[in-house]
Amino acid sequence: MRLLNAPALLIGLLSIALSECALAAPKSIILIIGDGFDDQHVTMGRNYLSGQSGTLILDAMPFRGSVQVETVDDTGAPIYVADSANTATTLATGTVTRIGRVGKNLNDEPVRTVLESAAAAGFKTGIISTASITDATPAAFAAHVGVRACESPITIRGGKKYGVTFPGCPRDLVENGGGGSIAEQLAMANVDVMLGGGLEHFAARFENKPTALDKAATAGATVLTKSDQLRERHDGRVIGLFSEDTMPVKWQGSDGRSAEEIERSWLNLVHDMIGSITPPDTISCVDNPLFDPMPSLETMTRFAIDHLSRDNPQGFFLTIESASIDKRAHERDPCGSIGEVQQLEQSLAASLEYATSNPETLVIVTADHAQAAQIVPEPTLYTGLPIPVFSPGKVARVETPEGAIMRINYATNNISSEEHTGANVPLFANTEGNKVLAPFMRQREIYQAMMQYLEL
Amino acid sequence: MRLLNAPALLIGLLSIALSECALAAPKSIILIIGDGFDDQHVTMGRNYLSGQSGTLILDAMPFRGSVQVETVDDTGAPIYVADSANTATTLATGTVTRIGRVGKNLNDEPVRTVLESAAAAGFKTGIISTASITDATPAAFAAHVGVRACESPITIRGGKKYGVTFPGCPRDLVENGGGGSIAEQLAMANVDVMLGGGLEHFAARFENKPTALDKAATAGATVLTKSDQLRERHDGRVIGLFSEDTMPVKWQGSDGRSAEEIERSWLNLVHDMIGSITPPDTISCVDNPLFDPMPSLETMTRFAIDHLSRDNPQGFFLTIESASIDKRAHERDPCGSIGEVQQLEQSLAASLEYATSNPETLVIVTADHAQAAQIVPEPTLYTGLPIPVFSPGKVARVETPEGAIMRINYATNNISSEEHTGANVPLFANTEGNKVLAPFMRQREIYQAMMQYLEL
Repeated sequence: MRLLNAPALLIGLLSIALSECALAAPKSIILIIGDGFDDQHVTMGRNYLSGQSGTLILDAMPFRGSVQVETVDDTGAPIYVADSANTATTLATGTVTRIGRVGKNLNDEPVRTVLESAAAAGFKTGIISTASITDATPAAFAAHVGVRACESPITIRGGKKYGVTFPGCPRDLVENGGGGSIAEQLAMANVDVMLGGGLEHFAARFENKPTALDKAATAGATVLTKSDQLRERHDGRVIGLFSEDTMPVKWQGSDGRSAEEIERSWLNLVHDMIGSITPPDTISCVDNPLFDPMPSLETMTRFAIDHLSRDNPQGFFLTIESASIDKRAHERDPCGSIGEVQQLEQSLAASLEYATSNPETLVIVTADHAQAAQIVPEPTLYTGLPIPVFSPGKVARVETPEGAIMRINYATNNISSEEHTGANVPLFANTEGNKVLAPFMRQREIYQAMMQYLEL
Repeated sequence: MRLLNAPALLIGLLSIALSECALAAPKSIILIIGDGFDDQHVTMGRNYLSGQSGTLILDAMPFRGSVQVETVDDTGAPIYVADSANTATTLATGTVTRIGRVGKNLNDEPVRTVLESAAAAGFKTGIISTASITDATPAAFAAHVGVRACESPITIRGGKKYGVTFPGCPRDLVENGGGGSIAEQLAMANVDVMLGGGLEHFAARFENKPTALDKAATAGATVLTKSDQLRERHDGRVIGLFSEDTMPVKWQGSDGRSAEEIERSWLNLVHDMIGSITPPDTISCVDNPLFDPMPSLETMTRFAIDHLSRDNPQGFFLTIESASIDKRAHERDPCGSIGEVQQLEQSLAASLEYATSNPETLVIVTADHAQAAQIVPEPTLYTGLPIPVFSPGKVARVETPEGAIMRINYATNNISSEEHTGANVPLFANTEGNKVLAPFMRQREIYQAMMQYLEL
């Protein structure tokens, strides 16, 4: 073997020094979760916001794939439709768990999240949601409770959520050695910025014990409650709580209308092959005045990116949830969902803007699970049939800006809330995605990819 | 400018010669269309065939993206849900057209297809379908009629299809200077191999005029009607017609069952928040004996690839349709659809096998449009509610080989056939896809990509 001569040795040392420099550049992840943002909702967003032949910002992303959602029951057997708690836990921790779990495995044990690992390694961290930040998706990145409804010191003792009675989270009670409710855990969590709704959960007081807000104050966090407070920079940990629970959405149907049942003549009610039917009037999407005082998802995104990237050579992990694609789909409100898709798009634009000037920023967009909404024909494919043809569920006929009518069908449930569905969900990323993502992944592998990207 | 010296010139000439050689290698496209094969069906297939945590052959494909489906009405205005005729026409010709059109634009004028361009340029060509080859999807690659139901010399004069009265295709009548019905056009078309169902359309005789079968015989085509005839090679043009219309599918539900309505107690019929409900019994997927005499999609694929690649230095264009994912979804028969997904997978395996030894083979899998089936929770997400919770549509509870129950909801229509839906559809390809495909495409751009790949 030849000995290296002096100039070669110098060049070698220089190149090692330079590569160390390169490693020292900030490396960040922005994970955007569209809750319930399946391909039906992606297409609803595209058709409405850009036209049938248009493209979303998402559509220009160079990496695209699909993600299989995994859920298990108490025995570990597969369940084919998920909820936001177990899927967010899978994204955050790589653990496949049961419905309702937040940051905990099947055995009700806490599992460390990508955000917690990043924080421990010196990355700054952030969580944003248009829901309460105590809701399952944002919470799963920095809190650990057995049942998603254990959001406050009161609800952790049991109660009702979405009309369903739940037993509370006895193992998570502070007096039982647990971390307390989600709000209490988030108040104390090592997360540099958290923005969303959820004031009522932070302010909830059980007996004479401290609230989550009290705990946040003791821990030295700055609590913001007004949108315009995001115009200024704030030092240290920031918790922004801009609504009591889920933030009001940007858009609603005209006259507050969402999907409705087909009106059936009395003859049609006697037998559905005779008589006549009348579909609901069309709906236009209009501004929701309740949204006015809210910060937009873009505003929260820009604030958080500035807060996390300022004077930070190491980079950050930020997760952003556009929550109400799902929440409004449960309520059969396509305008609400589409307004949230627009919010997601604007948040994505702000994220990509940062990534352009900070190339080692992995921007991922994905969904947690699919949802009930379906774009169905307007008019029916069976127009030639001499009998009434109609959906057994509820439909909304949305006027699109390009002058057509997009008919949305919600038909998974008789009750006031639709079910989730079980299709694999979309995955989008900027070019950094090519380093760690694959065209087909299981949801837990997104966690592994993020850990790999941050070298954790 | 420096003059080239003699050795450099020789090397230059040699490299040109070598690159000419490379260009002379066969270059082929296999386009597999899963009819109605949206992400719900992809996931139904994965869950059943490979398990929730398993992978389909599709999932290992290195290229994955999404395709926006475009449809217009008679005025050219957007329609958000397509049928198989207009989408196959778009894939085949790059033209966005109206529902029902086969290989024709909005003005009822024929548009040249990628298959026809390939054939004209000397490529061999083939069409395979598990439907009748006169059905819209296969037909759109080599026939041109105003309305999809104009499949035979009889139906071209009008009639009923799927219970819908249609006017026929007067402009396409031979006596009016048209190409005749789809069967007549296919009988004469410059396509080297066509395999599928459709004997009744080829045998249909109007008055005393020649049938499509007569025309095929006159044109010198070999007509096969038995599966075992595919064991031997046949020279020249081959038309295989193995069933009267759509081929029977591989699987069916036990006892021939498909999705059923929830059984409601008399009290629940009085008001849906009281009383009790009983979901249908579970279904297992079993072999359909009617499928026994049929060639599988894999058998047809292997025969066609051999037929097209034998003694053919230029390559071929082959389109393969797995038709009954859609057809069985219309009928609310998840086992039928899933069996077709398995057929698609096996056809894909055979295609990838050829591509491995013939690297310049672009294998694409996509769908034409989305469909009604939805995987919904089993049990409901609202198990804690003290009221009956059920789908207003029809559900099938399918036993999966991994021992769980996958509940499929069909709830777009009151009549005996479900509607299509409007989500963007999946796109898969082998590595050759990277040369001409993008993560997001409009359906017409698939045509452009195929033309570009074959340098047409």
